[in-house]
Formats: sequence, C-alpha cells, structure tokens
Amino acid sequence: MARTRTAVSKTAKYVYLFGKGISDGDASMKNLLGGKGANLAEMAKLNLPVPAGFTITTECCVDYFKAGMKYPAGLEKTVMDALKQVEKIMGMKFGDPSNPLLVSCRSGARSSMPGMMETVLNVGLSSKTIPGLIQKTQNERFVYDAYRRLIMMYSDVVMEKAEGIEPADGKGIRKQLDDKLAELKKEKNYKSDTDLTVADLKKLCEDFKKIVKKVLKSEFPDDAGKQLWGGIGAVFKSWNGKKAVSYRRIEGIPDEWGTAVNVQSMVFGNMGDTSATGVAFTRDPATGSNKFYGEWLINAQGEDVVAGIRTPNPLNNDTKNEHNKHLGSMQELLPGIYKELVGIRNKLEKHYHDMLDIEFTIQEKKLYMLQCRVGKRTGTAALNMAMDMLDEKLIDKATAVTRVSPNQLYELLLPVLDPAAEKKASLFAKGLPAGPGGAVGQIVFTSEKAVELRAKKIKTILVREETNPEDVEGMRAADGILTARGGMTSHAALVCRGWGKCCIVGAGELKIDEAKGIVTAGKASFKEGDVISMNGTRGYAYAGKVATMTASENPRFQKFMKLADSFRKLGVRANADTPADAKIARDFGAEGIGLFRTEHMFYGVGSEKPLFALRKMILSSTLEERKKAVNELFPFVKKDILATLKAMEGLPVTIRLLDPPLHEFIPHSIDQQKEISKALKISLDEFENRASALKESNPMMGHRGVRLGITYPEVTEMQIRAILESAAEIIQAGGKCKPEIMIPVTCDPNELRDQKKIVSAVADEVMKKFKLKKLEYMVGTMIEIPRAAILADKMAEEAEFFSFGTNDLTQMTFGFSRDDIGGFLEDYLDKKILAADPFQTIDQDGVGFLIKHAVAGGRSARPHLKIGICGEQGGEPKSVAFCHKNGLNYVSCSPFRVPIARLAAAQAAIASK
Amino acid sequence: MARTRTAVSKTAKYVYLFGKGISDGDASMKNLLGGKGANLAEMAKLNLPVPAGFTITTECCVDYFKAGMKYPAGLEKTVMDALKQVEKIMGMKFGDPSNPLLVSCRSGARSSMPGMMETVLNVGLSSKTIPGLIQKTQNERFVYDAYRRLIMMYSDVVMEKAEGIEPADGKGIRKQLDDKLAELKKEKNYKSDTDLTVADLKKLCEDFKKIVKKVLKSEFPDDAGKQLWGGIGAVFKSWNGKKAVSYRRIEGIPDEWGTAVNVQSMVFGNMGDTSATGVAFTRDPATGSNKFYGEWLINAQGEDVVAGIRTPNPLNNDTKNEHNKHLGSMQELLPGIYKELVGIRNKLEKHYHDMLDIEFTIQEKKLYMLQCRVGKRTGTAALNMAMDMLDEKLIDKATAVTRVSPNQLYELLLPVLDPAAEKKASLFAKGLPAGPGGAVGQIVFTSEKAVELRAKKIKTILVREETNPEDVEGMRAADGILTARGGMTSHAALVCRGWGKCCIVGAGELKIDEAKGIVTAGKASFKEGDVISMNGTRGYAYAGKVATMTASENPRFQKFMKLADSFRKLGVRANADTPADAKIARDFGAEGIGLFRTEHMFYGVGSEKPLFALRKMILSSTLEERKKAVNELFPFVKKDILATLKAMEGLPVTIRLLDPPLHEFIPHSIDQQKEISKALKISLDEFENRASALKESNPMMGHRGVRLGITYPEVTEMQIRAILESAAEIIQAGGKCKPEIMIPVTCDPNELRDQKKIVSAVADEVMKKFKLKKLEYMVGTMIEIPRAAILADKMAEEAEFFSFGTNDLTQMTFGFSRDDIGGFLEDYLDKKILAADPFQTIDQDGVGFLIKHAVAGGRSARPHLKIGICGEQGGEPKSVAFCHKNGLNYVSCSPFRVPIARLAAAQAAIASK
Repeated sequence: MARTRTAVSKTAKYVYLFGKGISDGDASMKNLLGGKGANLAEMAKLNLPVPAGFTITTECCVDYFKAGMKYPAGLEKTVMDALKQVEKIMGMKFGDPSNPLLVSCRSGARSSMPGMMETVLNVGLSSKTIPGLIQKTQNERFVYDAYRRLIMMYSDVVMEKAEGIEPADGKGIRKQLDDKLAELKKEKNYKSDTDLTVADLKKLCEDFKKIVKKVLKSEFPDDAGKQLWGGIGAVFKSWNGKKAVSYRRIEGIPDEWGTAVNVQSMVFGNMGDTSATGVAFTRDPATGSNKFYGEWLINAQGEDVVAGIRTPNPLNNDTKNEHNKHLGSMQELLPGIYKELVGIRNKLEKHYHDMLDIEFTIQEKKLYMLQCRVGKRTGTAALNMAMDMLDEKLIDKATAVTRVSPNQLYELLLPVLDPAAEKKASLFAKGLPAGPGGAVGQIVFTSEKAVELRAKKIKTILVREETNPEDVEGMRAADGILTARGGMTSHAALVCRGWGKCCIVGAGELKIDEAKGIVTAGKASFKEGDVISMNGTRGYAYAGKVATMTASENPRFQKFMKLADSFRKLGVRANADTPADAKIARDFGAEGIGLFRTEHMFYGVGSEKPLFALRKMILSSTLEERKKAVNELFPFVKKDILATLKAMEGLPVTIRLLDPPLHEFIPHSIDQQKEISKALKISLDEFENRASALKESNPMMGHRGVRLGITYPEVTEMQIRAILESAAEIIQAGGKCKPEIMIPVTCDPNELRDQKKIVSAVADEVMKKFKLKKLEYMVGTMIEIPRAAILADKMAEEAEFFSFGTNDLTQMTFGFSRDDIGGFLEDYLDKKILAADPFQTIDQDGVGFLIKHAVAGGRSARPHLKIGICGEQGGEPKSVAFCHKNGLNYVSCSPFRVPIARLAAAQAAIASK
Repeated sequence: MARTRTAVSKTAKYVYLFGKGISDGDASMKNLLGGKGANLAEMAKLNLPVPAGFTITTECCVDYFKAGMKYPAGLEKTVMDALKQVEKIMGMKFGDPSNPLLVSCRSGARSSMPGMMETVLNVGLSSKTIPGLIQKTQNERFVYDAYRRLIMMYSDVVMEKAEGIEPADGKGIRKQLDDKLAELKKEKNYKSDTDLTVADLKKLCEDFKKIVKKVLKSEFPDDAGKQLWGGIGAVFKSWNGKKAVSYRRIEGIPDEWGTAVNVQSMVFGNMGDTSATGVAFTRDPATGSNKFYGEWLINAQGEDVVAGIRTPNPLNNDTKNEHNKHLGSMQELLPGIYKELVGIRNKLEKHYHDMLDIEFTIQEKKLYMLQCRVGKRTGTAALNMAMDMLDEKLIDKATAVTRVSPNQLYELLLPVLDPAAEKKASLFAKGLPAGPGGAVGQIVFTSEKAVELRAKKIKTILVREETNPEDVEGMRAADGILTARGGMTSHAALVCRGWGKCCIVGAGELKIDEAKGIVTAGKASFKEGDVISMNGTRGYAYAGKVATMTASENPRFQKFMKLADSFRKLGVRANADTPADAKIARDFGAEGIGLFRTEHMFYGVGSEKPLFALRKMILSSTLEERKKAVNELFPFVKKDILATLKAMEGLPVTIRLLDPPLHEFIPHSIDQQKEISKALKISLDEFENRASALKESNPMMGHRGVRLGITYPEVTEMQIRAILESAAEIIQAGGKCKPEIMIPVTCDPNELRDQKKIVSAVADEVMKKFKLKKLEYMVGTMIEIPRAAILADKMAEEAEFFSFGTNDLTQMTFGFSRDDIGGFLEDYLDKKILAADPFQTIDQDGVGFLIKHAVAGGRSARPHLKIGICGEQGGEPKSVAFCHKNGLNYVSCSPFRVPIARLAAAQAAIASK
C-alpha cells in the first residue's frame, strides 16, 4: 500500500545563524525558523543588540520525528560549525576552561505556544568550565546559582520529561529538587533564594546531583557538548509532549509544523544590581493605549519574571499601579538604558507596523534583546490599536480591519459587570487586570473541578496561587481566573489575554488553602462553590453575584464595524424567532432574518396555549380533528410572524415551515396527557396509542420538515396563510415586508412542486381577501439533505432561494447524529482522525463539496439564485470565509454573532483581493 | 417561476388508420399507438383479416390531460375523416339507419395493463340504427342483446366512472343493471342469458334506460356520434382511474405515457352457432411447450371469454384437459377456420420471433383478428420457449438470454410442493393451472384480509368466486389465488401469470360462502384461517400444510444460466453469514461472498453463548472487563469465519467488522438482565445505568461500525485475529483462502489508517505464530456514508477495495430512516413525489451520483480498485444494470437472488453492446 511521505531533502539547510553583523534569516521565515528564531534574525538585521546564536529549523524537527527521533545526517557537524561562528562573535568558547561560553536552548514554533514547550538555560557549565567562569566573573555565588538552575532544569526537562520517565511516586525530579531547596532554606531560616551563600549553593549542587542519580538512575552530564545535544533533543521532543499536544488541539495548530530550536549565547540578568531582566509590550496589551508597557526584575533571570514568583517592578511611570508603585521603575533607576530601550521600541514598531512583545536582559549595564514578537492583546486593545495605528498612518484601512480577529470581537461583546451593581458590590480583593470583561461563578480550586462543572454548564472562577501550563484545560473551562501571585506577563495573564478571558492576577491579599478548599482575603472567607464576581478590566473581585451587562455601544466599535463593512461582500443576517430577537439582530447590524423557526414559539415561557393547540394537532387522528386544531393554532402562529415582519421593516425575513419531528412536542407529564386526552375526547389508552405511533427509531431522519407538509397539507396551508395574511396586513397599512417562505428537509424537487401549489392557492385567496393586486414573497428551500445538494440544479428550477442548513447537512454527510457523537467524537479528535468538530466548523472536504456542488448546480439553473447559510456555523469565522469564497450571498447566525460574521466576511474579502 | 412544459405540437398526427390495404402505423410504433394499436396496424400490413379502424395516439391522451381534459383542436374533424375511410372499407356507415356500422372503443397503452382500463363495445346502436341492423342481420334477438350490453357497459364506463360519480349506496350502476337482469332471469326461471327472448331483451333495454336515468340523473344517449365521443373520453379518463394508477405503481409504469384509443369496426361472435370468439397463445404460456394453445366460446362476445363466466371450449386437442374435454374444440367443429387460424399463428410467430397472445372473432364463419401481442408467460414457459426458439433458430443466443426477465427467474426459484409430500396429501379440488409453483397459507376471502395478514407476515391463499381488477392489491399480498370460476385467460390467470404467482382458476367444485366465511368442496369444508396448499403447476388444491421445496436443479435452467454467464461482465457474489448460506450461494453460482456479517452469529437460534459474551463485552465499563469479554467471544467468531472461509475454497470472502449500534443487543427480559449483571458482578441498577448510557437518539447515525473500532481497538483486534488465524490455519493445512477485511461506516481515510495499524500488527503476530512467510488478505471499506463517497479518492489511498452499502447510503442521502418511512413513504408514492421506493431500486439521480463520483474518485487514486455493492439492491435487476453501466466489478446479494443478478448482469451487458 502506498504511503504518502515527504521526501527528506538531503541538502536542506538546517541551521541559520544570527548575531552582530551576521543574519542568515529574517522575520518572513517564521515557518522555517519559528517565530522566535525569525524575529531574532530580523532584530540582528536591524542591528539591535542580540546575543549571537543559531536556529535549528522546524524542518529539521519534522525530519527528526520522521526518522524515528534520529538527527539528520550531518547535523552534528553543521551545529558545531555554527557554534564556532557564535564563539567568534561573542569572543568566548563553548566548553572552554578559561573563557567559557554558555548557551540556552529554546523552542520556537511558527505560532506562539507560551509555556507549552521546554527551555534549558546555562548549558555549558561543568566541572571543567566552572572555575574559569568564576575566574572571569569574579562572582562565585552567581556561577553556582547558575549551576544549580542548570541542574534543576536539565534533570527535569532533558533527563526526565524528554526520556518519557513517569515519576514513580507522582513526584517528579523537579519537585524533589525544589523540596531539597526549600528544606535547606527552612533549615537555615532563609526567606529568599538570595539569602543562600556560596557554600549553600555548592552543597546544594552536590546534593542535587546525588538526588538526580538516585531518582533517575543516571549521572548528571558533566560535559558541555553532551548537555547541548541533550538540550536540543529535549526541545524537539517537547513538541510532542502532552501539554503541547493539548494546546495545539485547542488552538487548531497542525501537528506537522514542528518546532525550531534556538541555541543562543547566554546573557545574565542575575549578575548583581546592575543586571536585570524584563518583558515589555510596545503598547498596553490590555487597553491598547499607546504607552510603553513593561515589567522588570533586578538581578534575576527571565524565568523569574514569567513564573510570577516575585512581583516585578514597573518599567516606567506609565506602568505603575496599585501593586507595584512602591517598586522602582527602570525609567528612574537606569534612565540611560531605559532611553535605549525606548529607542528600540520605536524602531521596532515602525519596522513591524504592529504592537510587539519584547524580552530583554541587562547584563552589567549592557542591554540585550532576547526576543520580539507580535504581542498578544485583548479584544479591546486590538480594536483600539487598530484604530490608533490607522490614525497614525502606521497601517492602512484593510490592515486595520484584519487586526481584530473575529474571536476577539466576541470578547468585545462579552458581558461586563454592570457599573451600577458594581458600585454596591462588596469588594474583597484587588489584583492586576490581566484579562478583560466581567465574570461571575462558583469558586473552584482545581482545573479538574472547573472542567467537571463546565460539563454541567455551571459557571466557575478558578482561584489559584498561580497557574501553570498543566492548568490550560481548566482555565479554558472556567469563566474567570483569579490568582494570588504573578504579574501581567505571568502564565495566567498571557494565556487569558490570548483568549480574551476575564482574569485577575497577583491579588496578594488572597490566602488559598487548597487542601481545605478555602480562600480568605482579609476578613472575607469563601469556600469551594461560593459565588464571586470579577471585573477583569479593573482587577477587582467581589463577593456574591454582581449583575452583568453587554458592552457593544462603544462608538469606536461602531466605527470599526463600519470600516469592516466597507470591505465586506457577503450579506449577514440573523437567526431570530421573536420580535425581540429581531430587534437585537438589527442592533448588531443584521441585514435581514435568515432563519425564523415557526416551531420556536412552542418552546419556552408563555407558550402553553399555542403548545396545547400544537399538541392537539399532532395527536389528531382524523383530518377533521387536525383541521380543528390547526385553526386553533393559526392566530398564535400569525401573531409572531406579523410582529417579526413588522420589526424588520421591509428587510427580508426567511420563515421556515414546521421542521422538527412531531413527537418532540408530546407531553411527558401525566397531567398534561390527561388534559390533552380530554380536549381530544379520547381515553388515556388512545392517547398512548397515538403518541407511541409517533415514536421513531431515528427521528432525525424521520417524519419531519416538508414530509409533514406532504402528508398533512392542511398544516402547510395554515402556516402559509399566517405568513401571507401578515404580509398583506402590513402592505395594506402602507408598510413594507419581504417574507421568504422556506421549505425544510427537502430531498426532491417534486416536494417543492407539491408545496408550491398550496402557496399559490393560498396567495390567491389572500390577495382576494385583502383586495391586493400583488403580494411579494419568495419560495425557497433549505439545502440540508445530501440529495437536495446533489440535485441542486433541479431544486433550483422550483426554489427561488437556497439556504444551507449545515447542521443537518453535516449530520447526514458524516452519518453523525449530533445528539450521539458524545460516544466517539472525543476519540476522533484525540486520535486525530478528524481535525475539528464538524459541527463547529464547516467540513470543507465533505460537506463543503456538497455546498460547492449545490451552488454551481443551483446557479446553472437559475443564474441569480440567492444562496445563504443558516446552520450554526454561519457565525464561525472559518466557515464565513468559506461562504465568501464560494459565492454565497449571505450567512445567517445568532444575533450575538452577527458582528463576528460581519468582520469575518470583511477579512475574507480582504484576503481574497 | 419557470414551469417546464412540453409544448403541444400543433401539427401532431393524432389518428392512425388500419384495415385491409391501409395501415398508417406498424409494430414499432408502440409508444405512440400503444401495444394494441401498433399490432393491429402490423397485422393489417401482413394482410391478416383485421376489422378496419383507427388509433388515436397516446400523445393525444397526454395533450388531452395537459389541456385540462380537453381534446386538441381539430381532433374531431380528423376522427370523423378517419371514420369515413373505415366506413368505406367496411361498406357500412356509422349511425346510418339502413346499414349501420358499429364500433368498439378500446384502450391500448405502451405496456399491457390487462383489465385496468375501460372498453366500450357496440357503440353506434340507437333508436335510429336498431331497425336497420335488425333488417340487415335478420336477427332481432342479437341486436337487442347487443343493445343491452351497450347500455350496461356505457352507463358504467362512460356515464358513471368517467364522470367520477361515486355510487351513493356503494352499488354502482353496473351492479344495479346486473341485479335487474338476474331478477328477470329468476322471475322467468331462466338458467342462462341465452334463454332470454327478444321480448325479454326489449323490455330489459327499456328498464335499463329508466334505471340509468333515475340513478345517474342523465339520459342514455340515443345518438351514435355522442356515444363515440363518450367512449373515446372514457378510455382516456380511465388512464387516471384508481385501478390503473395502482397497477402502474406496482409495475413501475410512468404516469406520463398515456393510453391510445382504438376505434375499430365491431364484428360479432354472438350472431349464432357459426359465430364465436376466442383467445389463443401461439405456445403454451404455462409450460412453454410448442403447442398452439387456446380457448373459444361459440355465440359469444370477447368479454365472455375474459370474464370467465362460462368455461370455454378447448381450441384443439392439445388444449383439452379435465375441465373442458367434454366441450367441442374448434379443430373438431370448425376445421377449416381452425386451419386458417393455424396458418396465421405460424405467420405471426415467424414474423414476431416470439410467442404471441391473439384474440379472434368468427362472425358467421368469417375469421377476424382483433388483437395480437407478445404473450405473457410463466417463468418456466419463458425459459423453455427461449431455449426452444434458440434450438429452432428463431432467435439468437443474446435474444434467448433477454427472453427471461430476472423477475421470472425468481419464479423459477420459487418453492414447489415436495412431490413426496404431495402424494400423501389430501386433494380437495382441481382447477386450471393458471400460475406456477406451490403455495401454502391461510384461507382469506377478501383482498383486504390478504393485505392485512401480509403486513403481519402471515401467508395467505385468496379464495374467490372469480377475481376482478379491484382485487389487484390483495392478489399481490396473497401467496396463492384459488378461484371457482374462470379459464386460463380469466383475470386471475392473466394477472398471476404476469407475476409468476401460484394460481388455480375454475375449480368448479368450490362453493364459496363469503358472508359465512366458509368454502366447501364435496365433503371438505374450510373456514377463514384454515391452512390449505396449492400446486399451481398442476392445478391441485390440498387440505392442510404440504411441505415445499425449491426447484433450481432443472438442467435447462442450468444451461440457460450458462448461456447468460457467457455474456455477463459483472461478477456476482452473495451476502452470506454462515457456512450453510455459503453452500447455497455457491450452488446458485455465487463467485464469492461479498458480505459476511460478523454480527449475524449473534442473532437467531443457538446463539445464546456468543450473544452472552457479546453482551458482556458491550456492557463492560473498563478496558479490563472488556478485554475479558472479548477473549470469551473470540472462539465463537473464529469458528464461524473459519468454517465459511473453508466452505468457499479459495473464493474471495469479504468479512465486515462489527457494524450495528451496540444497544441493539442489550437484553430486554429481566431474567437475562439479571444473568448478565451477575456475570459482570454488577447490580441491576448499574446494569440499567450502563444500558441507558448506550441508548442513542438516532442510533443509525450513532456509535457503530468503525466508530466502535476506533473507541474500542481491542474489539477490532479480536475480529482481525479471528480472520487472520482462520486464514493461517487453512493455508497451513494446504488450503486456499482469500479473506477481504471490510471496515464499515467509514467517513474519513484516517479511520482506515487507524484500523489498518491494528490489522498490520495482528498480521505480524499471526504470521509469527503460524510460522508463515506471507499471509494474503485485503483491507477495504464499505462506502455507505455520503462523505466516504465524496472523499473516495482519499479513501482509495487506504482501501484496497470498495463495497457500496446502498442501504445506509440511501438512508443518509435522502435523510430517510428506513425504519421510519412508514409515516410518509406511502404519501410520497401516491402523490408521485418519488417514482419508486429508493430502498428497492437504487435512486440513480441522488445515490447514483455519489456512486459514480466514488467510482471515478476511487479509480483515480487506485486504477484497479475492486468495487462492489452489497446493499439489498444488489440483486434487483435495474440496480444490477446500473452497476454494470458504471463499471463495478461485482454485485453481492442474498444467495437466493444470485441467479437473478447473474441474468440481470448478462442482460445489461447485452443491452450495452
């Protein structure tokens, strides 16, 4: 059997250098070098102070896995050659006893996966190089501190995780070393790591190595070269680590991309008080305001900032807040270097035309740039930056429209705490505003609990000391994240900002006792399950439930949407079933209703009377009984349709005739059964008989939609009469309306012929009754059964419009019952049999084939056939892009998703230019 | 909206003359002139004695309906012109007082629809023409007898049925006139109609006209022209009569064909003892033997023969039997005319190269041919005639193969009474052998009861005085038909012969008391529900249940099938689940097994043990439990597979992995539930929980087929092991075998990739275990989900063969749950929304599109991809033809249908030459 396989190019260039005066790559080479590597190359090109290094390509990673985790031939030599060049630039030598170069090994994929893959720092420290480095730095403490960090990271990442060793007692090597460190500090009564003496650190390193050997049955490698290759291999392997795979699934990143490895000369922010390390955003990532925004830590390595263990200093005055205002800013403490950094910031923004996220280190007053990448931002920030940069002429209109992702827009539409309610609410903690919007939910302390309650549709707030990559699924499941520690660049803040999720970090008052399931803040105390509320935009947490409201009235949002609409070709309508929904839809910019479901008036509150009439209709056994019930039903149906048509003031309204299997409406309670039986003058036994005759083995493929209309023409007639009489009334009163009658679940043009006869007959009667010369309406069909899509040319001979019902079309095309996929979909996604849930995103290969076929067929018979989509994917950005590309006239989605669809459609139009 | 409509051709020739020396048409023009008209034209061309007349075309009928039942412009004149020509040939004038011509108006569609449409005879008799006809014929009795027949037919057909009048008291005009006639006979104590005197008949005609006026509120028309147009219109209208529509639905005749009307000069077989009328077949339609076979009645009109009221005389010595040997044959009584008829018979067979069914009338010693058409025959007769005519060089091999329809072959495979059992059985009645084979069933007296019991799968014998077209549905439902009256050309005999249904007519001993529900024959007496048995080939009826057997060992049948196979391109396999089925399949000529269903061993008798193990597997909640159950199941699965592979001796066997939704197997009885719970060591509550977790809303689209294999790889593994170990054992023992592993319900190539990994792994293990160097097997997939058909090119990269599962493919393509179509399919067929039940015949437009697409896609990726079909349509002739045309390699069907598929495939190959 043939196996598709990309041939390994023997001449592939696997290693790209970067550094002062040399740069093999640039920012455009993200796919090959990963985001980090490409940007390091670009910064080097811009003559920014980047410590020299080289990138091993993603292609190398892919080939490594294809070859069964073996390095391609010749890689070793190429790497060693590159290392020699780096040594030359840096004036140091890797593994050299007197002037040793240390390097880091960092991952870097095409798309940022923060914290998901591994890093090893300080590679190159060994018994051979330590004395030389002490000699050179005159800082024995620094060297042993670096060494103990290397042992901790390396044993964890390279010796344990990369080897796939499962800790026997559930306690990994890292945890054991951490415990050892904590034990020592306790013993000596030290408060901070900085209290450790040289002797302590020396002893610690020896103890660490013993523990490593005992636990992992392997010696910590005392050789720079061995360490380097261990680090490279561990980064590659971390691409397929559990965390990374799970993150990719959530973010939709293909498994085939692979990661690059960046081997870079180490610079140290922890060489004393003139050393530091920091992270900054060229603009505020939470609000978007044009202020240089960052945090830094004196005498620290980069991991200290990200880990959120110490509250970092503000970068400048603009970055000061309640939590850090007592700490010195770089602007104040190192004004010269700060100025240099501001210059770099300006240069970068001008060069990249976007907001950037940068990492830097200051080693003994010398500034080094370690990373730059396009910064993650909240939806609010994305919107504000796009509009600001447009005003600043940094970007053009089309670019501005693409700068807010449709999912970020969703965040802009998220609820916020109602300001009035918030004023009266009981504040119990303040923290950093790391993720926007408002959230209300039950306190949970673990990821698992958040996932569990999510499944029950219970809203939760995940309360944690700090979060780590293992928490990703739980963070996804929770409605808000509240942490006691960490800054704006901590894990929780980074992840939540990416998702636009409500998040507060570094709320220092919180004392969390996870074991007891209690959190206290001052006098307030809460246990698991208690409800709290959060304002993520301010960083305030409140006891109890605070009312929320939506935030779409922002004029800048309106302006942005107008800009988007100027590019958009695809129409956007809403699925709405009531005049109230219709109003919301119009407020959100819907240009019509693409799906009004007749049956929805029978669900929900206040539906007792029409539902009762419907039930009588369903349970009728004679034409006479049924006609009587249908007549009772008529005024209810008409009332809703009339009100909705009025609300839309002449915009098109697509009204779908009765669709679901009838037995759905049969009452289950004995009282209701008795009532219906009485109304129909039948016994309860007879009720049972009639009800059970309606039961179906596979109702989704049963007696529903047009099939009901064929067997019970009187039911179709009643609905048509309700629609056309409503239209006639509006027209008679001088109004406008455009009803579009949509026939569901069709599979053959003859079904349309049959039902259209009823439409024509009723239209004639209504025109006569209302003394109208003409009555404007259209008759079309859902395309939701594969056969209707296949016979689209024939369907279009009868139908004046098509609307794809992608929910059912997906069900039939896959043979997946949406109600039953729970049994296997999880396995399908886990085993990567399907890339995505096809009910979330249109399956372009299968369902998409039928859509394309139907569009072509339909337009061949009726060139100007109006074609839309009204399934749930109608508001999903990838699906909207698909609809644009395939020439649909409009998408229809829930009112709330209308702006998202509008933006997605605009972006699709821009992309296809 | 555009309406497709065939334009009415203004210059269409609507009327075609035939008769001595003139003939506008010929036998090739069946579509336009109908079968009867085309053959009348052909006979006239052959200079046979055909009474002159003309045919109004089927096109005229179609236009008549399109115009809302209005005759096309100019038709009246054209008809009257044609009538003038007929008058000229016949030397008489229509409506003329002194020399009046009488005509008949008969229907004639493309395809014979015996008794389904209307006929009016003796048209042209009125107060104006009666005296002249009496004068001319010197036979007053004959004229009034003809007149009373005209009134009876005309009032029924033209004045009541064609006007759509529903008899108020359920008693139609015909019945009322019949009652009047019976009343008169009783009053006068007459035994036969021939006892009626001239005075009786005159009085009767007057009484009849009064009754007609009273009942139908309309005068019987006393004008020849008016009668003629009434007759023409009534024939047209009868095309859409209830009987005709119902017949067309059963026979699959399109509604758009329409009927022709044949207006032909009357000749009379009832003008005395030198007049007669008869019906003959050029060969025996029951056995096929080359003997001129017919029946005739002296002094009678054609309707008397068909109605079966009098037992007809034998045509010749060859036709004599127990029932008619006392009656004189034409060979004896009218030897000259008989000789002339034999000459015509020979001429016609030579000309048509087929067996013909002819109608003739002798008017005062002059022979007239009224009809000739290809004769209906039993399957046995079709086979024998085809082989005889081939021997006689009357037809070639290809024609011989097309002379037996696949459905007739079915009849040859029908059960017959076991001769040994029949010898000991208790004979209670003898009749004419009108329909072949054997039948055993409960006595029913009404069509309704037959239909009712059929629905309950209870076999019935419909026992009737005689049948009429109203009985068609009941005759279809019954397993055998037994009538007290009628000859070999009676309604029951004609219909049953067409269908190949077991039938005995004219069993004169029977006394039927329908009201009491009792039938007696001599001393024997039976009530409704009693079981009787019939030998339709001999015409014998037996009390009680007689054992039956199949009749496929006929050497002529074998020879015919060999001939068919010499033309066939398409392979034919069987769906078989046991070694016993496999044996039957091979006996019927199957070239392999196209579908072995693993799960079928869990149904039916003796399945307790494997079913118990399966249930344990299904209800397991842990991998451990499941693996244990799977191991218990393994030996059962292997045993059946091994035996079937052995039985097929190296022919390919396609084994489908577990397919159905699992909850199908969950026990319903509380005892079984307890037993399973005990075996699994769980409580009954826990049993309930697990069972209800398996329930699905739409199981047909749920967790089944490959989806089970993805979530429970151990279940796939067990099945693969059973297949490959069986194969290995056979090969080790020096045998041959070709297992083909078929993965069901796939929708994506990744599913195949996943399952093939298991296959490879197990294959390696098995080869090791059995010390084999190689193990031949294939892995392929069902194409039964639309998406699999759409992605066929991708599927074929993984699959070594495709097999279309048209049952599921039809379900998903239409969105029709096969179990639930009862609610609407009837309406769909009645309202002509669908032409046929798509589960019976492949829907070529929709499902066929996917099949064609998949064949093209599959072969684009794998040019020699083996493609078959294993859905139930695999043995249906039209579907087989479709598979041939679209390049499939084989069809697979139930063993019993294998010969039918072989023949259908041969005929498809011949047709496509």
